[in-house]
Amino acid sequence: MKPVKVGLLGLGTVGSGTLNVLTRNAEEIARRAGREIRISHAAAKHYDPTGLLGLDQVEVCDDAFAVVENPEVDIVVELIGGYSPARELVLKAIENGKHVVTANKALIAIHGNEIFAAAREKGVTVAFEAAVAGGIPIIKALREGLSANRIEWVAGIINGTGNFILTEMLAGRDFDDVLAEAQALGYAEADPTFDVEGIDAAHKLTIIASIAFGIPLQFDRTYTEGISKIESQDVSYAGELGYRIKHLGITKRTDAGIELRVHPTLIPERRLIANVDGVMNAVLVKGDAVGPTLYYGAGAGSEPTASAVVADIVDIARALTCDPENRVPHLAFQPDEMADLPILDMEQVETAYYLRMQVEDQPGVMARIATVLADAGISIEAIKQKEPEQGEGRLPLVMLTHRVLEKQMNSAIAEIEALASVNGQVTRIRVEPLAG
Amino acid sequence: MKPVKVGLLGLGTVGSGTLNVLTRNAEEIARRAGREIRISHAAAKHYDPTGLLGLDQVEVCDDAFAVVENPEVDIVVELIGGYSPARELVLKAIENGKHVVTANKALIAIHGNEIFAAAREKGVTVAFEAAVAGGIPIIKALREGLSANRIEWVAGIINGTGNFILTEMLAGRDFDDVLAEAQALGYAEADPTFDVEGIDAAHKLTIIASIAFGIPLQFDRTYTEGISKIESQDVSYAGELGYRIKHLGITKRTDAGIELRVHPTLIPERRLIANVDGVMNAVLVKGDAVGPTLYYGAGAGSEPTASAVVADIVDIARALTCDPENRVPHLAFQPDEMADLPILDMEQVETAYYLRMQVEDQPGVMARIATVLADAGISIEAIKQKEPEQGEGRLPLVMLTHRVLEKQMNSAIAEIEALASVNGQVTRIRVEPLAG
Repeated sequence: MKPVKVGLLGLGTVGSGTLNVLTRNAEEIARRAGREIRISHAAAKHYDPTGLLGLDQVEVCDDAFAVVENPEVDIVVELIGGYSPARELVLKAIENGKHVVTANKALIAIHGNEIFAAAREKGVTVAFEAAVAGGIPIIKALREGLSANRIEWVAGIINGTGNFILTEMLAGRDFDDVLAEAQALGYAEADPTFDVEGIDAAHKLTIIASIAFGIPLQFDRTYTEGISKIESQDVSYAGELGYRIKHLGITKRTDAGIELRVHPTLIPERRLIANVDGVMNAVLVKGDAVGPTLYYGAGAGSEPTASAVVADIVDIARALTCDPENRVPHLAFQPDEMADLPILDMEQVETAYYLRMQVEDQPGVMARIATVLADAGISIEAIKQKEPEQGEGRLPLVMLTHRVLEKQMNSAIAEIEALASVNGQVTRIRVEPLAG
Repeated sequence: MKPVKVGLLGLGTVGSGTLNVLTRNAEEIARRAGREIRISHAAAKHYDPTGLLGLDQVEVCDDAFAVVENPEVDIVVELIGGYSPARELVLKAIENGKHVVTANKALIAIHGNEIFAAAREKGVTVAFEAAVAGGIPIIKALREGLSANRIEWVAGIINGTGNFILTEMLAGRDFDDVLAEAQALGYAEADPTFDVEGIDAAHKLTIIASIAFGIPLQFDRTYTEGISKIESQDVSYAGELGYRIKHLGITKRTDAGIELRVHPTLIPERRLIANVDGVMNAVLVKGDAVGPTLYYGAGAGSEPTASAVVADIVDIARALTCDPENRVPHLAFQPDEMADLPILDMEQVETAYYLRMQVEDQPGVMARIATVLADAGISIEAIKQKEPEQGEGRLPLVMLTHRVLEKQMNSAIAEIEALASVNGQVTRIRVEPLAG
């Protein structure tokens, strides 16, 4: 069979990894795919040829549109990132009847509905395994491996930078200190907003939710809260209570609609996912038939991400002559079978809570706080009064509550913050059992 | 589109689960598959209709061959188990041009090469996701999700009964005691040989190795050692050394050939897989590009296994009109691209070891043992002399060694057992770091 020719847009971290993996494992991959897969063309404005394998076989230019227009190219691999010109390039590739593979989570989360509609029109595939959780084949697991199930919820550690920071904070280090190290190590960007404020995780969660529940991509409906307000004392108090704090993307089907939320979360420390450390990612999926399943691996990096990119290329190569209707639908469900389930506002979401506040060291304080919570119908599961800090006559009060609507918790917290014996703001972190 | 008609052979645990999942989630599954999937026929000698959903839509008979011969049936699902008549039924289904889904690990491990050759001849698919690790989509992950990788090794907890027993032994309970409970709970058969002696795990490992490395199925070359000789003191000493004992199936590519072995294994307790407890399964895969990835979930049970069976049915339904050459190869690699790599004898395998022996409580014993090991070129990593038991003048000596060829360890152990100051046999458990 004729080799499949791939046009690579971008020779950065993931682009280099893709070239290297396809070159180094060419034989192994051809033995699987039944045909040779070769990067014939690549576009990059600037790149460092050091360490790149098989570059002599590739026609490199600096015009990505030239690759997309090249009739020799069967599959376009978009690894430029960002919205523009990535969107225009992908749409042009589709228009030219080429299949597309992308690792671009932002592009899929924001422009996926448009892109998949165009791809459907032209009968081509747009594959994006690498956009979620790097090398972990979670898109394939959700879309194909668990296709028997009504998915109940998915919870994932889907941002390695955030997980690295929280893991290091377990040793008592401060957020700012660890962030600086993450930047020095290259785990975090100079502007870390996308990672630490949860936007990157929200992009990925948007994609996961769509595939899990058969709903359109709705990034703008995702509740997003980062980890920049987590203090090392919260990590340590959570530990004393038997929990770990992880930055999770959570999407859940309820009778009222779909929950779609990214925020720091206390998880019981015995759960496997609570023990996923450093830059590693993990996604926990609860299906009605299979129960809980977990997928763990590297969520970023050159070759792990390339692993997902190349798997998508192999899938496309294998199904190149299939009827488009016989291919797996982009978003797992047939495009005319997408459901119009409402996405819940955060106020409609019910979780348990960890609360921490600074209170005056005097009698009756705990009773007043407990009364506010009781009046709001919120049950307390555990309460811990810590030693006063710096002999100030104030002390930290930490508690765990039972499940309650966010809306009710918001009012209760407002009332607690208004109490004279409570200083400053109440820190609130949601708690999830993540039980099978 | 016309519904896909499924003929179900067997209405036992997994058969009932398959019927129930396909009935309960019919709409969700059709939204994914793009067509209705319906169990139209079933064969069962005896079955209990209690709790079976949608049975009124199914034509049930007691002759499995009648279902296999029925021209209305598109896909035959074999859930009878055992070698015969499962083999004859599957071969007849293939001969009749039907696709086959099976959960039968023994059948695939022993007769897979014959079955896949026949399927290839007729251009049909034989799918077997449910044969390995129940509901975990590990076959799909290895065969498709990681297709970019040169797989280095796979290590899995792939027998839930064995893992349940070892988990309970962590609490200090004895093997026999826990086995009796596992039998009462229905986790273990009245004859537990397949589970506790590792044969079931060896069937699954045979399949994993074939898919990981592109080699023919070679069950008879798998080294198989069960957990029936593990004592609760070993579980507890391992814990003191920072390890957990798990019953693993391990297959690894080395320069000399492929390792294929099932045995109890000490794993560092911080590894996620060391914390997979109870009847749950997990498979850790090391790929050269992606690094380590882990897949966790229920390895057995009615609906978890049905989840895998139905996923296979959906895959087949989606690709029903595809060219057979465009489908994913049964064993991941194209049939004419299988490699003839040698399977190593256990004596050629190199691992680290945990050793426990009963020694006389007198000076010089430890020196004599250390000398035997030193003369055999075996380095000791840690050594612990325990308190004497029952004031007998004998005491347990526990040690960890560095990596050494099994052949060398065998001679060293024979020499140690011949020492007058060592009583009885040396207990030996292999140690694997399972590091990424």
